[in-house]
Amino acid sequence: MKQAGEIIIKDLNSLKEVLKQKAKKYKYLPQIGRTHGVHAEPITLGLKFANWYDETTRNIERMKYAIDVASVGMISGAVGTYSYLSPKIEEYVCKKLKLKTPKITSQIISRDIHCQYINTIAIIGASLEKFALEIRHLQRTEVLELEESFTKGQKGSSAMPHKKNPITAEQICGLARILRANSIPALENVALWHERDISHSSAERVILPDSTILLDYTLNKLTNLIKNIVINKDNISNNLKLTKGLYNSQYIMLKLTEKGLTREDAYKIVQEIAMNCWKMNIDFRNEVMNNKLIKKYLTIKEIDEIFDLKRFFTNVDYIFSRLKL
Amino acid sequence: MKQAGEIIIKDLNSLKEVLKQKAKKYKYLPQIGRTHGVHAEPITLGLKFANWYDETTRNIERMKYAIDVASVGMISGAVGTYSYLSPKIEEYVCKKLKLKTPKITSQIISRDIHCQYINTIAIIGASLEKFALEIRHLQRTEVLELEESFTKGQKGSSAMPHKKNPITAEQICGLARILRANSIPALENVALWHERDISHSSAERVILPDSTILLDYTLNKLTNLIKNIVINKDNISNNLKLTKGLYNSQYIMLKLTEKGLTREDAYKIVQEIAMNCWKMNIDFRNEVMNNKLIKKYLTIKEIDEIFDLKRFFTNVDYIFSRLKL
Amino acid sequence: MKQAGEIIIKDLNSLKEVLKQKAKKYKYLPQIGRTHGVHAEPITLGLKFANWYDETTRNIERMKYAIDVASVGMISGAVGTYSYLSPKIEEYVCKKLKLKTPKITSQIISRDIHCQYINTIAIIGASLEKFALEIRHLQRTEVLELEESFTKGQKGSSAMPHKKNPITAEQICGLARILRANSIPALENVALWHERDISHSSAERVILPDSTILLDYTLNKLTNLIKNIVINKDNISNNLKLTKGLYNSQYIMLKLTEKGLTREDAYKIVQEIAMNCWKMNIDFRNEVMNNKLIKKYLTIKEIDEIFDLKRFFTNVDYIFSRLKL
Amino acid sequence: MKQAGEIIIKDLNSLKEVLKQKAKKYKYLPQIGRTHGVHAEPITLGLKFANWYDETTRNIERMKYAIDVASVGMISGAVGTYSYLSPKIEEYVCKKLKLKTPKITSQIISRDIHCQYINTIAIIGASLEKFALEIRHLQRTEVLELEESFTKGQKGSSAMPHKKNPITAEQICGLARILRANSIPALENVALWHERDISHSSAERVILPDSTILLDYTLNKLTNLIKNIVINKDNISNNLKLTKGLYNSQYIMLKLTEKGLTREDAYKIVQEIAMNCWKMNIDFRNEVMNNKLIKKYLTIKEIDEIFDLKRFFTNVDYIFSRLKL
Repeated sequence: MKQAGEIIIKDLNSLKEVLKQKAKKYKYLPQIGRTHGVHAEPITLGLKFANWYDETTRNIERMKYAIDVASVGMISGAVGTYSYLSPKIEEYVCKKLKLKTPKITSQIISRDIHCQYINTIAIIGASLEKFALEIRHLQRTEVLELEESFTKGQKGSSAMPHKKNPITAEQICGLARILRANSIPALENVALWHERDISHSSAERVILPDSTILLDYTLNKLTNLIKNIVINKDNISNNLKLTKGLYNSQYIMLKLTEKGLTREDAYKIVQEIAMNCWKMNIDFRNEVMNNKLIKKYLTIKEIDEIFDLKRFFTNVDYIFSRLKL
Repeated sequence: MKQAGEIIIKDLNSLKEVLKQKAKKYKYLPQIGRTHGVHAEPITLGLKFANWYDETTRNIERMKYAIDVASVGMISGAVGTYSYLSPKIEEYVCKKLKLKTPKITSQIISRDIHCQYINTIAIIGASLEKFALEIRHLQRTEVLELEESFTKGQKGSSAMPHKKNPITAEQICGLARILRANSIPALENVALWHERDISHSSAERVILPDSTILLDYTLNKLTNLIKNIVINKDNISNNLKLTKGLYNSQYIMLKLTEKGLTREDAYKIVQEIAMNCWKMNIDFRNEVMNNKLIKKYLTIKEIDEIFDLKRFFTNVDYIFSRLKL
Repeated sequence: MKQAGEIIIKDLNSLKEVLKQKAKKYKYLPQIGRTHGVHAEPITLGLKFANWYDETTRNIERMKYAIDVASVGMISGAVGTYSYLSPKIEEYVCKKLKLKTPKITSQIISRDIHCQYINTIAIIGASLEKFALEIRHLQRTEVLELEESFTKGQKGSSAMPHKKNPITAEQICGLARILRANSIPALENVALWHERDISHSSAERVILPDSTILLDYTLNKLTNLIKNIVINKDNISNNLKLTKGLYNSQYIMLKLTEKGLTREDAYKIVQEIAMNCWKMNIDFRNEVMNNKLIKKYLTIKEIDEIFDLKRFFTNVDYIFSRLKL
Repeated sequence: MKQAGEIIIKDLNSLKEVLKQKAKKYKYLPQIGRTHGVHAEPITLGLKFANWYDETTRNIERMKYAIDVASVGMISGAVGTYSYLSPKIEEYVCKKLKLKTPKITSQIISRDIHCQYINTIAIIGASLEKFALEIRHLQRTEVLELEESFTKGQKGSSAMPHKKNPITAEQICGLARILRANSIPALENVALWHERDISHSSAERVILPDSTILLDYTLNKLTNLIKNIVINKDNISNNLKLTKGLYNSQYIMLKLTEKGLTREDAYKIVQEIAMNCWKMNIDFRNEVMNNKLIKKYLTIKEIDEIFDLKRFFTNVDYIFSRLKL
């Protein structure tokens, strides 16, 4: 478990490094932010990667903790009393093996320790599922902002030659389900009988190798996927414009209230314009510019400032500095 | 989550304190150790409690870690960009609330954080299930070493007036299943869409209160159960003698090899005697004493030393010192 | 469980009826079919509903089976031997209650029966999650083919007045996680000790009401959602055209092979044209029409037939007749 | 899935046959019934096996249902519309393969079908866990009523030659955890995107072979275990007498009420005697015989009838006839 854990930490650090690079590279690439699958307000693509970077950092800490707890050895005899062998021998051997000595055992090391390890892997799996799911969403035909890179000679669908499917991201989502499921036997293995029953053993022979190997595999797959991901800047830009500026509605409303309108009145004015734009599929900025009521409160310069996309990214630097990126 | 966590930490400390007292009180009370549900070699009842004490200590550390990770607040706007409000305000408010400021968020705090919290509760639940399961085992009619204490006037079965059932321990085992199950939605809530979808919300409204309240309830139940547990010393002593000394067979075998016999020969000699005692239900020590072959190698004094129960507990002090108990 | 089950069957029949209506209404409304989130070949919206209709029919059968198995009563005494009361009384009482008499019990009815019931609810929950997930996908801004209907006066986001989120569908996805999780304690409750231990009881007090009530709630929510769903035919039509006819590539290839080309050659020719159209965002049909090689094998009439959208729906009637729709 | 299912049905029938034989063989062998792990009233060992026989019969029905639902094939094209191939071909091929034709598919057969199959295996696994757990309980040293048979030459513990552990039963309990866990990915695989995403595939490559192979293995292990189980009749008889007749207390109480005492008074009288016997570890029958109050109401002949063990088994024949055993 210690050795497998060390490989996983290495994998996680590779993923973190790739996410760092992507976060920095796309720090200022505007992209529409989406909540409920619906356009909300702009973010930058770099912020998305930075968020995953931060989550990966937490996962590294969790995994290190789980490995540390699991890095124990024992030679304490049939029921943990060291009846025939001094605890000093255990201490000597564990030191040689760079393992800690447990404070107390029964015939075995308590399975809460193995459980924490397997469940930490399940949490990391859930994070990978999150990242992979996002890529799948962003690769759907109508969005197509990101794409899994095709290696030379790789075929897509045999029927539609242009069809490229996010199959690696889908595979990662599927395997995360296996990692998640393994947390249940790990939890059930804790409550053994007396000084030990061996029911945990057959289950551990499945879940310990499966969870460690699958996480290693999945981490490598995802790191490569992200390293080579294709970024379709045109689509990102086009999607951002899809609602023709409607994502500025909140800010106009706030500005109108600064000028003395009640929030209620401001909301009503902006809502009417926004609804109309949405229905007619026309440009929000134009309608705002031409609205007599709004012009009473806001100058053209002020409206220009409101519709300046950069305004949304004022604090990107600050966020990145928090992350030391 | 922070506040609920603090109550849980308090509960865990109470449990730990009770386990400490029981461990110390029964430090030298001999009890048969069991593996596979079958008698193995003697332990002391104090060691059993000490093992739970140690596991509870690990659970406190895990829970503190989970609370620490979860003790974050955020005011970062619709997609986490602080478009209308400075991150300084977030920092100010979080400080007031004694929460940390997250480095980065989307519309919400990443759900790996909530997942760690719920899964930590599931692990603690599994430990409580372990302790409660042990009590159920030790209260079964044929064993009856421990018993849930009856409050004055409490009735057992209406049919058999003497029948006392370990219903609290059984209840704890059942509720641990709920805590365990809740780890699955917590893991599934991590992979949300884009800057947030709200699918996690309806699930969290169930699992966050259920897991925290049930763990608090279960911890209190178990702590009281253990605090007032009835220890049937006679039964503990009688069960220890059930196999009429057979648990000393390993040590005799080892002593014979020290005297020059091969392990193979020693095993064969001891096995024959042991098998016979087991079948005939006769005293192992007598048979050893009267065995001509053994008498060639071991003096009566040496045999007496082998059959001295205290020998098994040579390292109990050392184990307790490791635990600082 | 029987009574709750009957309510659920009624709910399922309501859902089935709504799905039937939608399937028939949109039987011939062309919509792009998607695999891997990527455009594949056309289906009709009615087929999608028909598929859900079929799945719901299976769920009704499963639920009826689970209710039937669970509709048993018992009065068999402390350990199932009818020591003080004749089994005839059990039979009489069960008949009055319209329950079956079990063939044999211990103190309790075996928990595999309750487990089947709870796990069937989990499967139904997973189906509802599937339908709700589809609606969420089809409501995303870039797709916007379906929309949860807004009741009069319902507000969307306070910031972006036009923003309508699929919150009911999201809620259903979240609650399906709870239904799924409850299958684990139900499975763990089967293996009780001897003639019964009571560990299942505390867990069942949570999962039986939670699963039945949540499924009832979720079924009603989803049935209403689908009944009132807004169908944006323009968007459905526009999305279908998004790849400018590329979904016909497979059929052209097949037609070319009918005319004597090897599949390899046909694939190569079509792939080249398709790739070019995809890159340049130009109309696939035009390119096919103007391709000299293809014109050698296919007449304009034949190409027209290939590009006739109706061709994809030749067997829709047959599928519906299989479903008796 | 169909073929694997048929092997499992065969396995289940073998188990059922062995349980039938054991049920009939031990139909009248008295054994103490236990609830909460505490002695309750007598059953027969045959009743225990008969209960498992009944549960296995239900599992066969469940599995047949799951196999029947899963025995479908499909050749319906990229999105289920049979665009290039008539549904008649699908029907022809499926008939040849002895599979049913589905009424409707997307690119794939809906995963609720696979889910039912894997979850049915999980339920069967839970039943096997129940049977194996019972054997483990009955093999514990203090009980030792049943024992896994040792093959010639099989060693127990290397330290204690007589120590025989129920390792097969423990292994079955462990593997049931894997079968149970696999139900979660199966449930998560239902909600795929649109006409199919491939996330289910990587998970199914693990859970479909693992669950079917492990269930086959576990069924064979358990069937052999039960076929060759060692029945220690002396221990069964001794354990039955452990409470020195206290399990008759309910019946005496009922008899006293028949004679005109209020239930309250009868309970009080019997309780006092029972408590005293329990504390003093003396024979309940003697105390009843010598109790002046009781002698006022019950003749010696009546008391003899009450203490006749056979009384508990009056309805065993009837139960067996319900099971057609």
